Amino acid sequence: MTTESAVRKRLGRPPAVDNPRQRVLHQAAKLFAEKGYETSSVSDLAGAMGVSKAAVYHYFRTKQQIYDAIILDTLGGLIETVKADAAQETAPSARLKRFMTAHARYFEQHRNGFIVMLVGFSGMDSPEFRDEARQLRDEHERLLRDIIRQGIACGAFRDVDAVMTGRAVLSLLNWMVRWFRPNGGLTAEELVLQYYNLLLGGLEAPAQTEHATGAPHGT
Amino acid sequence: MTTESAVRKRLGRPPAVDNPRQRVLHQAAKLFAEKGYETSSVSDLAGAMGVSKAAVYHYFRTKQQIYDAIILDTLGGLIETVKADAAQETAPSARLKRFMTAHARYFEQHRNGFIVMLVGFSGMDSPEFRDEARQLRDEHERLLRDIIRQGIACGAFRDVDAVMTGRAVLSLLNWMVRWFRPNGGLTAEELVLQYYNLLLGGLEAPAQTEHATGAPHGT
Repeated sequence: MTTESAVRKRLGRPPAVDNPRQRVLHQAAKLFAEKGYETSSVSDLAGAMGVSKAAVYHYFRTKQQIYDAIILDTLGGLIETVKADAAQETAPSARLKRFMTAHARYFEQHRNGFIVMLVGFSGMDSPEFRDEARQLRDEHERLLRDIIRQGIACGAFRDVDAVMTGRAVLSLLNWMVRWFRPNGGLTAEELVLQYYNLLLGGLEAPAQTEHATGAPHGT
Repeated sequence: MTTESAVRKRLGRPPAVDNPRQRVLHQAAKLFAEKGYETSSVSDLAGAMGVSKAAVYHYFRTKQQIYDAIILDTLGGLIETVKADAAQETAPSARLKRFMTAHARYFEQHRNGFIVMLVGFSGMDSPEFRDEARQLRDEHERLLRDIIRQGIACGAFRDVDAVMTGRAVLSLLNWMVRWFRPNGGLTAEELVLQYYNLLLGGLEAPAQTEHATGAPHGT
């Protein structure tokens, strides 16, 4: 990601589609998200772009390669964005908040890519692709676990299981792909702030929390 | 669901497949979960069952009807199980725990049905099917929101947004379909208990919770 596109993201503008390869990926993500990967063809894609099939094949040899590139680009951009945002804070709770809001913002800007990545049946990946995608996913999850472990170590967070807590955070973020609709009122980032507050403070009312943790009642 | 199958579920046994129609659905869920809906044919299904295509068509006119029946059966059974379990408690936190653990247990027992329902691309539903499935999903979500609102009303839960909190709970439960593997150690129910504890108590260490809620420090 260039500095220019990082600035664009911070300003909340949609991602630019500034080269032919990216235009293919952008249009393909839209097509796969709306119609499904299996039922979409390279002809459909070329038709939607108003170009010949040969023009598409100039950049990608197969439909599978287009699919793989959408996922790797989406994951790569996500990690870069989230890392940069989390690095701007030092306190674990602030870093966790940044992780979650940056993820939500990037998701809203690249929603079609996320739908392709998370909604479609993905049993058709090549092994090389799977390895690369897994490495990116692991990197994302590792950053999250590190933030949680940092919080536990410095006493800001309770002594929770970092793996399951990281899974909980990613479940909240990833499941948005199933229900979030853009322009429906709140932004993905605003909605995720509600998740963050719920996750930090818990559902149980304070008096019971104090009781449950063995601390004397302060009220 | 018969009383017998309800008892079977409580005992944690796998779901019985006791009639030909259910055998078709059971095998189809396995096939669609492993290979994807689009790439599976009725011939594949008949082959896997060791019967003729005509034997399958005796129960379902189309592959789409099989898909619809898997989802409606899975959702219907889920709601019946969760409702019955939640009804055994009165305190909101105990009811929420029952909702979550019953959902997890039913998911583990019907994992293929959940994969078909939640992982595959589902843009090909008929409008009638969509209405029925939506009604079932709404019923499930309504029960959950009612539990949360009951907890807020009686002071057991903080004054959270019931809709977003319900979404958070369902995100945690539904996303399990993407990462949970049976026989990998803990059961789905045991894992979900960790989510429940995180959700109730929150991530933040107690002293900070007291500070955040404005209560004087008790320690």
